Amino acid sequence: MGHAVSSFKPANIAVLTVSDTRTEETDTSGGYLADALKEAGHHLADKKIVIDDKYQIRSIVSQWIASDTIKAILITGGTGFTARDRTPEAITPLFDKQVEGFGEVFRAVSYEEIGTSTIQSRAIAGFANNTVIFAMPGSTGACKTGWTKIVKEQLDASHKPCNFIPHLG
Amino acid sequence: MGHAVSSFKPANIAVLTVSDTRTEETDTSGGYLADALKEAGHHLADKKIVIDDKYQIRSIVSQWIASDTIKAILITGGTGFTARDRTPEAITPLFDKQVEGFGEVFRAVSYEEIGTSTIQSRAIAGFANNTVIFAMPGSTGACKTGWTKIVKEQLDASHKPCNFIPHLG
Amino acid sequence: MGHAVSSFKPANIAVLTVSDTRTEETDTSGGYLADALKEAGHHLADKKIVIDDKYQIRSIVSQWIASDTIKAILITGGTGFTARDRTPEAITPLFDKQVEGFGEVFRAVSYEEIGTSTIQSRAIAGFANNTVIFAMPGSTGACKTGWTKIVKEQLDASHKPCNFIPHLG
Amino acid sequence: MGHAVSSFKPANIAVLTVSDTRTEETDTSGGYLADALKEAGHHLADKKIVIDDKYQIRSIVSQWIASDTIKAILITGGTGFTARDRTPEAITPLFDKQVEGFGEVFRAVSYEEIGTSTIQSRAIAGFANNTVIFAMPGSTGACKTGWTKIVKEQLDASHKPCNFIPHLG
Amino acid sequence: MGHAVSSFKPANIAVLTVSDTRTEETDTSGGYLADALKEAGHHLADKKIVIDDKYQIRSIVSQWIASDTIKAILITGGTGFTARDRTPEAITPLFDKQVEGFGEVFRAVSYEEIGTSTIQSRAIAGFANNTVIFAMPGSTGACKTGWTKIVKEQLDASHKPCNFIPHLG
Amino acid sequence: MGHAVSSFKPANIAVLTVSDTRTEETDTSGGYLADALKEAGHHLADKKIVIDDKYQIRSIVSQWIASDTIKAILITGGTGFTARDRTPEAITPLFDKQVEGFGEVFRAVSYEEIGTSTIQSRAIAGFANNTVIFAMPGSTGACKTGWTKIVKEQLDASHKPCNFIPHLG
Repeated sequence: MGHAVSSFKPANIAVLTVSDTRTEETDTSGGYLADALKEAGHHLADKKIVIDDKYQIRSIVSQWIASDTIKAILITGGTGFTARDRTPEAITPLFDKQVEGFGEVFRAVSYEEIGTSTIQSRAIAGFANNTVIFAMPGSTGACKTGWTKIVKEQLDASHKPCNFIPHLG
Repeated sequence: MGHAVSSFKPANIAVLTVSDTRTEETDTSGGYLADALKEAGHHLADKKIVIDDKYQIRSIVSQWIASDTIKAILITGGTGFTARDRTPEAITPLFDKQVEGFGEVFRAVSYEEIGTSTIQSRAIAGFANNTVIFAMPGSTGACKTGWTKIVKEQLDASHKPCNFIPHLG
Repeated sequence: MGHAVSSFKPANIAVLTVSDTRTEETDTSGGYLADALKEAGHHLADKKIVIDDKYQIRSIVSQWIASDTIKAILITGGTGFTARDRTPEAITPLFDKQVEGFGEVFRAVSYEEIGTSTIQSRAIAGFANNTVIFAMPGSTGACKTGWTKIVKEQLDASHKPCNFIPHLG
Repeated sequence: MGHAVSSFKPANIAVLTVSDTRTEETDTSGGYLADALKEAGHHLADKKIVIDDKYQIRSIVSQWIASDTIKAILITGGTGFTARDRTPEAITPLFDKQVEGFGEVFRAVSYEEIGTSTIQSRAIAGFANNTVIFAMPGSTGACKTGWTKIVKEQLDASHKPCNFIPHLG
Repeated sequence: MGHAVSSFKPANIAVLTVSDTRTEETDTSGGYLADALKEAGHHLADKKIVIDDKYQIRSIVSQWIASDTIKAILITGGTGFTARDRTPEAITPLFDKQVEGFGEVFRAVSYEEIGTSTIQSRAIAGFANNTVIFAMPGSTGACKTGWTKIVKEQLDASHKPCNFIPHLG
Repeated sequence: MGHAVSSFKPANIAVLTVSDTRTEETDTSGGYLADALKEAGHHLADKKIVIDDKYQIRSIVSQWIASDTIKAILITGGTGFTARDRTPEAITPLFDKQVEGFGEVFRAVSYEEIGTSTIQSRAIAGFANNTVIFAMPGSTGACKTGWTKIVKEQLDASHKPCNFIPHLG
């Protein structure tokens, strides 16, 4: 658990796995994100698995955005280029502002790991109703990269110069 | 009730009232639409009142769009030009296709009733996931105009040349 | 044929029928438009039938837009709201400027003929590379309405106050 | 002058003529609008003539939008389809909300006067910073149509059910 | 030639040079790309030179997108910021999905070679009808960078974790 | 001052500080940019401080874009994700073409300095009327990074392979 740092503020975070085949038992990517955020001292506000359907994804994410308590949403899956990959199409219209740097930095750090195939990812992030949404690829490796190298630090209120949560809260 | 016409097919229709002040008791516009669709032989699938908040409106409408059973959504309120009027901003990003003719015809028939003030209305309609969404102004008069002069006929499967519901079902 | 009016200037006009089922024999709508424009004194520059496929439609229309000689394109079909109807999605991205009044006036004159079902049409028009493109519904009746009540006059250089062809040529 | 109606509230209104050739002497359209709004009891806040240049138009209109005192802007010219016509391109990006009904109703009332050539007009209106902007064609006849049949009434606070100015002020 | 790797699958690839001045003799950039893809074992499906004209570029690319056999399109030229540079304007409206990572990674690898001037490039990529389109600057050096450091690997079906062609084929 | 290099051409550059609190005395970021561009041999065409208001920012920038003499605009502030940060919303609609590489490279070089918090910046650049606009964060450190590592070189006509000013002038 840790985080004795006095300035740490736990946030309510929801996790969504977008997949046509994963179940609660086989959802290693969503499971990784849920465990990781709890280990970092945050609260798991909700966790769902949804099929690769634009309307189902949008329905769940828009409910979380409208909630008063959820401050961050982590999504895994549906960010590629096959016909079934619809996560960016589902959530981008919900954003007030896009965090263009997230996709860029995600692909830049992924480049170190998987080379040019990083361009196969449409990782994106944005804000809506003061909630930050991060969408990462479906592989557990990609989620680890996204969480440990970018998202964890950005959700940690003790981080400097500032972080996303108190920034908007 | 009526509708002995053999080709009539009742549809599941949801009603949303967008208002900061209306309650179930004072919601005459939403009440009118609910009564009118039942009188026409359709089923009232759900009825809600929501404040003029982009995220709350979008959350409810996106859930109805994602549902398998709801085939039409009628919205009243939030279509004007004050800072609180956000219904078009809330729902337009959810549309797969916009029904541009609805706003046009609504304003044209309203022109007969209220003259140039018809341009104060941003009545709109669209399709998403084979569900048709009609958004009308908050006044009960406007809802009567929209329902009796446009929407009722378009939701009636016995109508010719065709109607919106079987068209997409 | 006629048109003794000295100021009449024939234009090169192409016709596209968008349909999954029509053949050259059964294409009454495209045939009507081709006959009508010739009868008005214009030249039929090209005539094709294409399936309801966004990429095929766009390929043909973008070639006609790029040509030096074609000044107007008449399209019939694919303007409704079924999943197969993709004409507006195919051609709108090709427009430099949209002629918003065409859809409005088309639906207004259709309202006189078919009532509220006029909102089922996404008739649209636009300009690209000084070529004007008119897209009308697939029924021959709709094409007659569009041609006789709007398009014919707008393509006739002897019309006042001005028309679309010399306006841009 | 008139307007003894106690509820009348004069508004500060600016007029912009978009033309490559008009001068203060020959600007009959802008002159008409300036005279008409004063006759209706409003104040002429500013009046300018600007060439058909997207950047020049946008610069003037964005200054008026940013001002605290100007509540309405009337523009004449640049709404057609020639390469020089750029008024919609100049001002649409400045809008917070578009008044789609204005273009529709303008073209519908113009249809009574000039027939199908009404589709040659891209008359548009919108709101930005609680200022309403109306853009009409360059002909004086079109300005008269727009002012007498739509705009005058919408800027008159004594009008019912409501008007644009107090609506947002 | 090489590529003894059993999993290699040759793809049909078309090359487009966008230039006002290049001829078949002087088209070193298009020539480089054509040679390079053949050397990698792919088929050159077509090769054209087109002037810096939005409509001409769009016409050719939309035909290749609509073809059943072409799986990738390589474009060189027209990606800068002068008035003549229109390749992104020509092709972006044709995309179903944009490959945002391509421009990012292209500029990142170019930064190693030309420093901050990499921002002068609007290299872009996208998918349409399961065809992948890569647009690179007009210099032969830029094409070498794009091909050898990104595109070649992404079009090679024996590449891991996956590549663009079988991904969508 | 320096710059004996014969090919150096000084440019007229305007500086805008976006801040609710800064005054001419405390505007270290705008002051830094003004000093830096003069030291590089350019002319300071104008310098203003404006509050974080979308309409005020847009009014000033659109005037500078419309001017014949200003060739570059440097903006500091308003690029973050709080509700007050509106610089991208204010200026993006004014762009003819966006310089996507600027935000990318700015965040990449900032990553070296501030790590993942670089994604909190919406640094952007674009062209309008042959004027280049660079928007950087409000901190003086960010302005130094942007100027010394990207902008200075791009505005220097003696730079190779080319730079933004003569490119378009």
